[in-house]
Amino acid sequence: MRSPIDSYLADLHADLLGLSSGAPYQGIPAMKDADNTKFAIAMATVDGHVYQVGDAELEFSIQSISKPFSYALALDDIGLDAVDEKLDVEPSGDAFNEISLSRDTGRPANAMINAGAIATISLIRDADAPRFERILAHYSAAAGRQLELSDSIYASEALTGHRNRALAYLLRSFDIIETDPTPVLEDYFRACSVMVNARDLALMAATLANGGTQPATGVQVMGKEAVQRTLSVMTTCGMYDDAGAWISAVGLPAKSGVGGGLIAVLPGQLGLAIYSPALDPHGSSVRGVAASERISADMGLHFVRAARLGRSAIRENYDITRLPSHIRHSEAATKLLAQYGERARIIELAGDLLFAGTESMVREVSELDACVELVVLDLRRVDEVDKIAVQMIHQLQRELAAESRTLALVQEIPFEPLASLRSFPSRNDAVEWAQATLLARHGTADMVPETVAVRDFAALAPLDGADIALLESLMEESRIEDGRIIRRPGEEFGGVYFILGGKVATSTLQGGRAVRQATLSAGMTFGEIALGGEGEQTTRVTAVGRAHLKVLSAASIARLETENPGAALRFWKAIARDAYTRVEENIKDSSYPLH
Amino acid sequence: MRSPIDSYLADLHADLLGLSSGAPYQGIPAMKDADNTKFAIAMATVDGHVYQVGDAELEFSIQSISKPFSYALALDDIGLDAVDEKLDVEPSGDAFNEISLSRDTGRPANAMINAGAIATISLIRDADAPRFERILAHYSAAAGRQLELSDSIYASEALTGHRNRALAYLLRSFDIIETDPTPVLEDYFRACSVMVNARDLALMAATLANGGTQPATGVQVMGKEAVQRTLSVMTTCGMYDDAGAWISAVGLPAKSGVGGGLIAVLPGQLGLAIYSPALDPHGSSVRGVAASERISADMGLHFVRAARLGRSAIRENYDITRLPSHIRHSEAATKLLAQYGERARIIELAGDLLFAGTESMVREVSELDACVELVVLDLRRVDEVDKIAVQMIHQLQRELAAESRTLALVQEIPFEPLASLRSFPSRNDAVEWAQATLLARHGTADMVPETVAVRDFAALAPLDGADIALLESLMEESRIEDGRIIRRPGEEFGGVYFILGGKVATSTLQGGRAVRQATLSAGMTFGEIALGGEGEQTTRVTAVGRAHLKVLSAASIARLETENPGAALRFWKAIARDAYTRVEENIKDSSYPLH
Repeated sequence: MRSPIDSYLADLHADLLGLSSGAPYQGIPAMKDADNTKFAIAMATVDGHVYQVGDAELEFSIQSISKPFSYALALDDIGLDAVDEKLDVEPSGDAFNEISLSRDTGRPANAMINAGAIATISLIRDADAPRFERILAHYSAAAGRQLELSDSIYASEALTGHRNRALAYLLRSFDIIETDPTPVLEDYFRACSVMVNARDLALMAATLANGGTQPATGVQVMGKEAVQRTLSVMTTCGMYDDAGAWISAVGLPAKSGVGGGLIAVLPGQLGLAIYSPALDPHGSSVRGVAASERISADMGLHFVRAARLGRSAIRENYDITRLPSHIRHSEAATKLLAQYGERARIIELAGDLLFAGTESMVREVSELDACVELVVLDLRRVDEVDKIAVQMIHQLQRELAAESRTLALVQEIPFEPLASLRSFPSRNDAVEWAQATLLARHGTADMVPETVAVRDFAALAPLDGADIALLESLMEESRIEDGRIIRRPGEEFGGVYFILGGKVATSTLQGGRAVRQATLSAGMTFGEIALGGEGEQTTRVTAVGRAHLKVLSAASIARLETENPGAALRFWKAIARDAYTRVEENIKDSSYPLH
Repeated sequence: MRSPIDSYLADLHADLLGLSSGAPYQGIPAMKDADNTKFAIAMATVDGHVYQVGDAELEFSIQSISKPFSYALALDDIGLDAVDEKLDVEPSGDAFNEISLSRDTGRPANAMINAGAIATISLIRDADAPRFERILAHYSAAAGRQLELSDSIYASEALTGHRNRALAYLLRSFDIIETDPTPVLEDYFRACSVMVNARDLALMAATLANGGTQPATGVQVMGKEAVQRTLSVMTTCGMYDDAGAWISAVGLPAKSGVGGGLIAVLPGQLGLAIYSPALDPHGSSVRGVAASERISADMGLHFVRAARLGRSAIRENYDITRLPSHIRHSEAATKLLAQYGERARIIELAGDLLFAGTESMVREVSELDACVELVVLDLRRVDEVDKIAVQMIHQLQRELAAESRTLALVQEIPFEPLASLRSFPSRNDAVEWAQATLLARHGTADMVPETVAVRDFAALAPLDGADIALLESLMEESRIEDGRIIRRPGEEFGGVYFILGGKVATSTLQGGRAVRQATLSAGMTFGEIALGGEGEQTTRVTAVGRAHLKVLSAASIARLETENPGAALRFWKAIARDAYTRVEENIKDSSYPLH
């Protein structure tokens, strides 16, 4: 199934393709004719999943987006303190090509402006391998594939970079660069001329989001301290003189490049990359800024809102064979449910359904096997449902319905914007619905019998016709009205109750509140619990609708034991066998939350 | 029990009290003699819990910390667009009292510098109530108590605020302030002269952290959009010309005031406030900055690290009576455990144990009833344990031990820094340990018998001595070596096994892996599961240590049924009763995750 997140990105892409303001960077001949119909959006999660739309594999030069990665490499190479001696971390409030050196020390204001980025290059070690080889290997490790230098862009950069040459010499004059500035500048131009695509940039951004570990390859590319520092500087300095407006509108550490790329990072969760070559007056991609603002607002990525996202939104994902309802079905129905049960899955969510939780939930549902017909989202432990979650859950419902699949929710008190969707107050109710739906779709009419004759009770299956007839002759028949209590906690063993028609519900009293446990329907028995001894009935049993019962009372059983010990023996053996069938079902059930 | 977070804050407070650099603000006569031995730290969570240490109820003037709250009020009053017309959101890179107006439009760079804050006051509605009344009510609602104006500080501010008067007239000249600037300025001075304490500021900061809802009173004080914008501007402009260094070192939106107060906000989680009057050259509290840096680093609050915190760290908190082990105890031991079981609690955690998860876990443990002797932290669903969590868990262990209470962990693969603590691979193992510990402490020696005679088996309790002797005479005795398999999945019913000594473990095969389900010990039976029919044994049963068994084989039972149906009847009835005792235990168990 197509993920609603892919649908969302496709719509956004189509929408923003209409934005035609701005022009490609004119400063470098090799870049000024870039095709402004090209437009890509890519999003990589910290577990390595990439969503992409448009020209996400079209290559362009990385330009200034190289700066944060060079900065992280320098920080890892020589440590924070040594880097700080040469470079400040303050926003300059200036454009990318401003000089912004401290009047006294010559320290560039930060590593995201050109002066700072050139100084950064000079701080990267080139002892064991040529410096640019190390830089390229570093970017490649973050992208998760081998990147290449564009010779033509490099040649163009080197030919036209007069202002950067001036900056490099100025840095040399202050001893910020301590060696010959020419090779430093050449490596700076090379770093800017590395070719990437939007997918690469999304994974590079996700590597920052993931504390320096590349999400797809698992390689630790950068240290955590270097990542924290780099993202901090990106926060205040990544968008040049537009930093305040960017933080207000988008609220993510980011970096743009005049090549048309833009990355934004949601720490712990997501790397976002956009490519489109037409630039605004700040030197950032017009569609890149617009898409970032839209995605941040629609998906709730602004750091103020995103802060509460936990990663553990999906608590469990299991099919109903793993945790069946307490309804007892006929042997044929049980077999069918064992076979078809995997077609009904329950996904249990917890915490706040903001971006990360929603994304992982939507992905989980989208990637379910096509055989799954019924999807139940258990929302009982969800604290908050953000608008992105509401939108995506409704979208999931439509996409599933289009494939003749059904979405249902478990919500004790429904979230208002989800109240229109099929909902159940408990998981057990949802499982009962799923079982009934599967039996109706794939079974025969007799599998969910309205009524069951005593001779067809699973509990009595080991007995022969004569034994069953004898037992039935000892039973008393009754019809109980809806809501009437049949058994009360504390009662003595009153016999074995056979449900011939209708339903009963069992509940326990917890803190004065009746907590529903199970619904029993035709073909099931109850009352045996009280066998434990005097006053051992622990559950309350109530009729749900009108229930048709036959009871083999304690007195009748006592009479049978005296008059026909052989039949009584076979009866008790059948009951013991039946009990152990239930013990076993429960062991399956209760072992489940243990692992 | 004292919370380890209180201990941490007390240590930090004692430590930083030694910092004696800086001096109180000299610009206002009423403030210049502030006592620099005063020092308070307060931390308020979004659920309204306040940690505080030092002079947390000593009042001082709010000064510039009023600015974000005035800004939020203006945003709520007239909307973001109308405010943006008068005020930019860009960092100025200047000190707090710099002019920083746009050359063309006169717009102040942001609302956190004086010029912007004065302009902000002019944007606050004063239609229905005098403007300052509304301002004071707004701050009071955020603090959760009625705040007061200091007349003496206000008088001092009004007398000495020449530069601010100049700013106000300059703003008037650009039509940024559209009315008489004098009343605006007076309200600005009043706003700065509101008296608060560190606890108030922590709750005001927590109100921002909590999306505008005061955590203790539940009052919605500010709109979410206003909060998001305010925190954005605090991020880039809250610490004046120190913004980049602050974001790098602390990584939280913040605001300081020359009164000696400082707030920092971890969105979604926490408000932090510090008071100490000696200021650094930027005009921020020396101890305030130092404490913020330490707390952020120690507790992992930097936005890059904190982003992954979920609120749902505590999945469950229950005592062992709610989810007992599968060990079958004697009646006396069972009664004792029912009575004392609440003294052993299991706290199940999930997600990342970074600050928020750790704080809630530590609070949960600290607030446990003093009767709780055994605390089990179930870490199986924890993805990451940050250093704050390691430190706090070790601290919890020591504090519990000092009160003769015991901490244990459940970790399948122990986290390395927690490997030295008492750990169990499964919850069931931890519960078995807790039960054995409670029985050893509060019970008698016979409650955890090494061996149980057939006549003392709970399953056979309804039978008389003659029946039991008869059954025992039909049993075959065996001793099984450690690790030997006794029953295999798929086997037919082989009889009922009585464990006289030692232990056996049952496990199921899930995806080819044996998953341990229960440990059975002396006094328990097994094998009945296979009663279901041919090949119905579903679990593997293995000896744990050397097991001493007696088995009533299927053949012996068949002979008994023929030769002595009365005794066989009583046997099967006892087994059925026993089975239903287990069904009931399991219903308790499995109903638990349902609610």
